[in-house]
Parts: sequence; C-alpha cells; structure tokens
Amino acid sequence: MLSINEERLLERINALGETGKDADGRRVRLAASDGDKDGRDMIVSWMKDAGLEVVVDRIGNIFGIWETPENRDKAPLMVGSHIDSVIDAGKYDGCYGVIAGIEVIKTLKEQGYVPERPIVTGAFTNEEGVRYAPDMMGSLVYAGGLSAEEALAAVGTDGTILGEELKRIGYEGTVEPGFIKPYAFIELHIEQGPIMDVEGVQIGAVENLQGISWQRITIEGAANHAGTTPTALRIDAGLAAAKVNVFLRERCLQSNGKTVATVGCIEFEPNAVNVIPSKAVFTADVRNPDETKLKEEEQALADYLKELEKTDKVRIHTERLVRFEPVLFDEGIVTCIEKAAKERGFSCRRMTSGAGQDAQMIARMCPTAMIFVPSVKGISHNPAEFTPDKDLLAGANVFLDVVKDFSSAK
Amino acid sequence: MLSINEERLLERINALGETGKDADGRRVRLAASDGDKDGRDMIVSWMKDAGLEVVVDRIGNIFGIWETPENRDKAPLMVGSHIDSVIDAGKYDGCYGVIAGIEVIKTLKEQGYVPERPIVTGAFTNEEGVRYAPDMMGSLVYAGGLSAEEALAAVGTDGTILGEELKRIGYEGTVEPGFIKPYAFIELHIEQGPIMDVEGVQIGAVENLQGISWQRITIEGAANHAGTTPTALRIDAGLAAAKVNVFLRERCLQSNGKTVATVGCIEFEPNAVNVIPSKAVFTADVRNPDETKLKEEEQALADYLKELEKTDKVRIHTERLVRFEPVLFDEGIVTCIEKAAKERGFSCRRMTSGAGQDAQMIARMCPTAMIFVPSVKGISHNPAEFTPDKDLLAGANVFLDVVKDFSSAK
Repeated sequence: MLSINEERLLERINALGETGKDADGRRVRLAASDGDKDGRDMIVSWMKDAGLEVVVDRIGNIFGIWETPENRDKAPLMVGSHIDSVIDAGKYDGCYGVIAGIEVIKTLKEQGYVPERPIVTGAFTNEEGVRYAPDMMGSLVYAGGLSAEEALAAVGTDGTILGEELKRIGYEGTVEPGFIKPYAFIELHIEQGPIMDVEGVQIGAVENLQGISWQRITIEGAANHAGTTPTALRIDAGLAAAKVNVFLRERCLQSNGKTVATVGCIEFEPNAVNVIPSKAVFTADVRNPDETKLKEEEQALADYLKELEKTDKVRIHTERLVRFEPVLFDEGIVTCIEKAAKERGFSCRRMTSGAGQDAQMIARMCPTAMIFVPSVKGISHNPAEFTPDKDLLAGANVFLDVVKDFSSAK
Repeated sequence: MLSINEERLLERINALGETGKDADGRRVRLAASDGDKDGRDMIVSWMKDAGLEVVVDRIGNIFGIWETPENRDKAPLMVGSHIDSVIDAGKYDGCYGVIAGIEVIKTLKEQGYVPERPIVTGAFTNEEGVRYAPDMMGSLVYAGGLSAEEALAAVGTDGTILGEELKRIGYEGTVEPGFIKPYAFIELHIEQGPIMDVEGVQIGAVENLQGISWQRITIEGAANHAGTTPTALRIDAGLAAAKVNVFLRERCLQSNGKTVATVGCIEFEPNAVNVIPSKAVFTADVRNPDETKLKEEEQALADYLKELEKTDKVRIHTERLVRFEPVLFDEGIVTCIEKAAKERGFSCRRMTSGAGQDAQMIARMCPTAMIFVPSVKGISHNPAEFTPDKDLLAGANVFLDVVKDFSSAK
C-alpha cells in the first residue's frame, strides 16, 4: 500500500503557514496581496520540484499538470483547493488540500506509478472573498459561472482592482479559465465544523454541500414609552425579531438536524432602554443540503413572518442577500472515499459541507466530491484552527488512494 | 363653580412652547441652558404677574408663593412640575403643570378666594435628566434624596457643571432645598401613554407610580460557523437573548396588564451573518406598581436566566442599572380628584404613572397625587406630543377644584 511522505507534508503545511504574516504576526494572505504572492511562489516551487508543468490562468488560478505522452489525450483528474486566507487565519483551511495535492502526485511519481489520465493539482484564487467579492471567485470563474473580465474588475475593500493586483504580483496568466475539462475533481479539506471531532471520526466522505439562504429581515413597530404603554397596545419590533429567532430554532429541531439556522446580526432602533423598539433589522442564515427542503424552510419562514404581521401588528420587509442551491456530490467518488478509508482502517462517515467550497463550483463541470478531516472543536478562520498530524496524514493517504483509483480509470 | 381663564392658559402654553427653539427649530430647553433660562424668565414673570413671591433654591427650583398674614403659619399646599425639556420636545410635558399651577392661583385670587393655607407653585430643575444625571434631580434634591452639593457638581453630557451653568443663567438661589414642608403636593401632567386616549377618558386620578427595574444582561455563548455547526452543538447567545425577550412578554401577559417589560437595547458579537453570536448584551426594563410583584418579576427573570444557563449552556451576567420602588400616592387626594371630575361631568379613571415624575420625589415629604390628561396616541418627548385644548382645560379645572379643596383644609 502506497503512502505519502509524512514528514514532507507536515513540513510544507508549517512552511506555508509561516508566509503572509503581518506586522502583528497574524497570518493574512488576502487574495493578490504580497502575502498571497509569497504563498503562491512557494506552491509554484513545490509544483516544479514535483516535475509538474505550471500554468496560471487569467484569474490567477495556478495549476500543476502531470501528463505523459501516453495519457495527454484523456480528460485529467483534477484536485486542489486554495491558499488565500482570511485575516488572522489558521494554517490548514485550503492550504492542506493544495499541499496534499502536490504531495500525492509527487508520491505517485516517486513510486513509479503510471496513471491512465493526467493529474492536475490547482490552487484557486480568492476562495475566502475577504478582499474581493464574491468568495470562491477563482473556481467560480473557472467553472464558467462568472466572466474573467467581471472578476478581474472587482474592487477590493481597500479600493484596489483585482486584475491590477494580480498583474502586480505576477499572477495574471493568459490561459482562459476552464481550459482543462476535468474527468473528475476531488478536494481534501478540514471540516471547519465540530462533528467529526465530537464523534471521533477520522475521514469524512462529503456527499453534498448545503444550500444557503441569507435574508435581511426588517421589522417595523412603533416606538413608545416603555413605562406608559400597556402590553396590549405595544407594537414591539424587537420582540417580533426575538420570536423569529425562536421560530427558526424550532424549525431546526424539527428537521432532524438537516436544517441549520442562525440569526447572526441584529440592530434595534432607537435602541434605548426605555423605548419600545420601532425597528429591528436582523439576518437569517438558513441552510439545508436538499433544495426542496431548503425551499420549504424559506416558505415556512415567509409564512411565519406573515402571521407575525397579523398577531404582532408589525410590518415586515425581507431582502435576499445570498442564495446558493445545495450541491450533490458524485456518489462514485464518495463510495471510493469510504472504501479507501475502510481499507486503511480509518473510521469514516458521510458528511455535508456546511461551508462553501471551491469543489461546489467545479462540481458544475464534472463529477466532484470532497474528503474532510476533523477540525478540533470545529474552529476555523482563526489561528486556533487545529487538526492533529495523524488526522492530516490519514486524510492525505486516503486522498492518495482515491486519486490513484480515479486516475487509473480508462 | 369657579373656572380657570381658558384663553390665558392656552396662550401661555403656546408662548412657553415657543421658547428654547434651536437653530433647526427644535424645542430644546435642556436644564440650565440659555433656552431653559428663557423659559424660566417667562415663568417668573407670570408668577410675579399673579402677585406671587418668587423664591429660587440652591438647585434652581423656582417657587411662586401665595401666602397671607392669616395663613403663613400653616403648611402650604404645593403644586408644580418642570419646564426643562428633552431635545426636540413637545410643548406639554411638564410645562402644562407649571403654567396651570400659576393659572389656578391667579384664578383663585381673581375670584376673591381666601385659602386656609398658603399655596405654592413650583418649577423643578432638570426633571428630564438629558443634560445632567440623574433625572428628576430638582425634586429629588428638594425631598432630601440627594445633596445639593452633589447635584450642583453634576457634569453634563457637554462637559459643563450644573452649578456653574445655573449661576451663569442667574438661577442659582441661596435658599436651601426643602425649605417649605408641604401639607400636600399635587402635580397636573399629560399621561405620556395611550390609555386615556384609547379609552376616551378625560381625567386620570393617578393613584400610584410604577416601580422600575432596569438590568443589563450579558449572555455568553460560543462563536461558531453558521453552516458547519450542528444545532445540537450550538451555544447561541443571540437565541438565548431572544428567549428572554419572549419570556418577559409571557410574564406580562400573565400579569393582567400590571407588569410591563421591554427589551429596548441589544447588541450581538461578532455580529456577522454567518457566525453564531458569542455574546448578546441587552437591557430589560421591567415595571410594576406593586413592590412585591415587581420583586416577583425580578425573581422570575433571575430563575429563568439560571434555567437558560442549563438548557442553552450559556453563561449569563446581569448588572443593575436602575431600581426605583413603586410609589403609592395619597388616597385622600385621589378620591378628591375623582370627586371633582365627577362633579364637572368628566369621565375619570384611576391610573398608574408608568413614567417617572417630580411627584414621586415630593411624595417622600407629604401626601401626594397626580392628575393626568390624555396624550393623543400616547406620544410624548416628541414635537408630535398633543393634548386637545378641551382636555387641557378639563384637567386644569379639576386641578383648580382639588387645589381649592386642599388649600381650604384647616
């Protein structure tokens, strides 16, 4: 049974984790920044070290291609993730998948393995979307969901233009995004949630990705004196908002764990101790891996808001902020992940990705799935993000097996 | 049956309402400001016009005293309210009671009435507490609840010292607050709530004043990803805050209208759409006119917070912001108000004052009660504050009867 080079994988994760530190020692590799350039240069050097042909497309996605004269006519197996980060990031999110992709190819080459298909490993631009919107931009453009022109014109939170910044750091390529149509796509990633850690599971075979529905809800009531207004005459926008929060939790509890919902932001007006809120503005983040169910949840919320308008005499206005349909990953790849985990003696469970991923974009082009490893306490996007070495190695070895399997498909 | 001079009363309410306008045309007579001085000067001129002896005490309370050689040894009947205002105020709150106090005395004098006791009408300093804390300051100092020294040293929101500002506008008196021990105190005021307007009642005989309990409640949960954290593993501080809001409303509904509760302020951390709130900070304003009941409500809230710590795994910290015991007004005066209203053919109901009042402070010194007239839609502290003339006149005439009655007591 083949095995990746454990020491090399861990060393590289640490090395990439040291790039992009700001003056305060925080890991900040915002897309197309100097820190991102440092990380990209490191990745490119490792791709070259593995003997890969490095190609950068117009949106700055980096690909390391391993093809032979014998297999160059076949659709390649693609793997990859991203290395851009949030502000004050951990070192695993994204980077683990990119580094493991290179490691898997290098291992296969070192062991004299000859794949039936080319293998391509990628690092997609601006997955986090912190500096430029939207997030998952590089993979979205690659899959044809957004034009390169539009993406390159994106204006950053710091007023910069993505296209100019990519050029400045030397990562504005000339190849058209989508130039390789993959045979399949596999992404290795940390879970970013607590489920595997809590359950003590080593490998997650990610079979789908939640649909995401974000709304901003504005409830209007009547500002009145908190002491002199009898309960029966109150039109309390804040109380109505509270009822929505409680309602959403009840829906989640009734959904057998499939629906999750969060009221993350809230604001009252006039926000005074002794004035009944005349306005409450808050967000509702509702997710479900099944589109029909997600629509049911959205309808249930809409119905409840209508009911509230009657019972609480408030006026309610909703605004859609984000809507992603759920993504169903490829059953063949998921089964292959489960089989590989079993053969190596690792515990495995099927998972839903609660977060957005590059894989959800590439899934528009080809059969796709993801492998998860645990995140301790579910922490991510934070320096406290942590996955024990043994779990990183387990995931990379399962990844190796699945890549070997799919790249050997005729 | 005597009657106040209707035209004069209404003219004076409008005239005082025109003082203290700022550059934007907003009525702003903050305590001890130039606008307040203009209002005070007007009140003093009307007191002098009524032949009253004007005395200003150290905290700037203005008293117009009508006494005769025959009654000067008897404890005076005191009436009054305040003329300081909030920013962008209406013209009735406070002013109506001060102007009607002068009007009642002038009417009695004009009609040749000879009271058994002196009658004193007062305008108390800084009832609103907008520029200097605490509110109801002048009456609180007058009743001995706060030393004049401490109050005069109060630093304003604009950095000024109250004592210096009172001196500057010429209203720092030398007489010690509390220099007159009243036989009784009666305050005429707009309701500042919607009950009388909704019920079509003309006269409110205010028998008590709600106890007020303000707390700041901090709930700590755990910030986690809104997509990847299963419901069962969430510690959602925002949801727990919502439950408290809903719980408070349920308590109010169970209290037959006696308890009112308001969550007026709220803040989440980190306040991001896709992060479960790690912290919710909000205020609870709970009121009941009965101290035992108010304590029960506070205990019920405390018990519920303890329960929430268990069920929702959050940590909760509470901080007391304000606590006033309820005030029970004098049954004799309340009955007299009801009788006067009945004799004049006005509808009347017993009321609880939901707002704080100068009368609640003076109630520490002597039998006290209040007369309310309706506020349309319960609006106050706002230019839209409105009481129809007929209601203003009805209230002032009932006030006249009650003052006549109590000043004739031997």
